[in-house]
Amino acid sequence: MMGPHGIVLFAHGARDVRWAEPFERLAARLRELRGASAGTVSLAFLELMTPDLPAAVAAQVADGASVITVVPVFFGQGGHIRRDLPVILDQCRAAHPSVEIRCSTAVGEDADVIEAIAGYCLRQAF
Amino acid sequence: MMGPHGIVLFAHGARDVRWAEPFERLAARLRELRGASAGTVSLAFLELMTPDLPAAVAAQVADGASVITVVPVFFGQGGHIRRDLPVILDQCRAAHPSVEIRCSTAVGEDADVIEAIAGYCLRQAF
Repeated sequence: MMGPHGIVLFAHGARDVRWAEPFERLAARLRELRGASAGTVSLAFLELMTPDLPAAVAAQVADGASVITVVPVFFGQGGHIRRDLPVILDQCRAAHPSVEIRCSTAVGEDADVIEAIAGYCLRQAF
Repeated sequence: MMGPHGIVLFAHGARDVRWAEPFERLAARLRELRGASAGTVSLAFLELMTPDLPAAVAAQVADGASVITVVPVFFGQGGHIRRDLPVILDQCRAAHPSVEIRCSTAVGEDADVIEAIAGYCLRQAF
C-alpha cells in the first residue's frame, strides 16, 4: 500500500512576512479538505523565505511521504518555473530516490482558477 | 452619466514572454463576461514587461474611461503592493485628476480564488 501523499505549495517568497498569509490560508484550507491522514501539506519558497523546496521535501520524506506533489503557486510559467524549478526538483529526486516527486503546472494556468480571478475582478468593477 | 469603467490587471512581469499568457487569458475572459460597452480591460506590469501602470491608465483615459479599477494580480500583499503600487497610483491620480482611480486588494486574498486554487491542488494529489 502507498504511504501518505504530501503536497508542497511552492511560492516565490518576499521580504514582507505578511506576503505569506494567503499561502498559509491555502495550506490550511487544503488540510481541511484532505484530512490529516492523506498526507502533509506544507509551504516552500524559491527565495527570501524559508523553508526552501529541498528542506520542505526532506521534512515530508522524514514524515513518511511516499509520493510528494509540488504545486507551483505562481500565475504564469515564467523563468522560475521553466528553468529554476526543474533543477531544484532534480536535486530533490537525487536526494530521495525512493520517493516519487511529481510537479504540476502553475495554478494560474488552471481554467477554474482563472474563472475565480475573473469573478473577483468583475465584483471590483460592477 | 458615468462613462466606461476600465479595469487594469496589474501583474509583476517577467523576462519570459510566455509568463504573460495566463494574464492575457484572464483579460480575454473578463472582456467576454463584461461586454465591450462596460469599459476596457487591459494589462499593466510592475517591471520587465510593458506597458507599465501609468501608460495603461493613460491609454484608458484616452479611451474615455471615467473610472478605472486597478486589480493587483498577485497572490499576497507584499512590498510591491504595500509600498510600490501606492506610489504609482498617486502618480496616475496626479496625471488624471478628473478620473477616479480605484485599487482592489490582491486577487490571492479573495476566499473564492483561494478555494479554486485549493480545488486545483486537490486534483493534483488525489
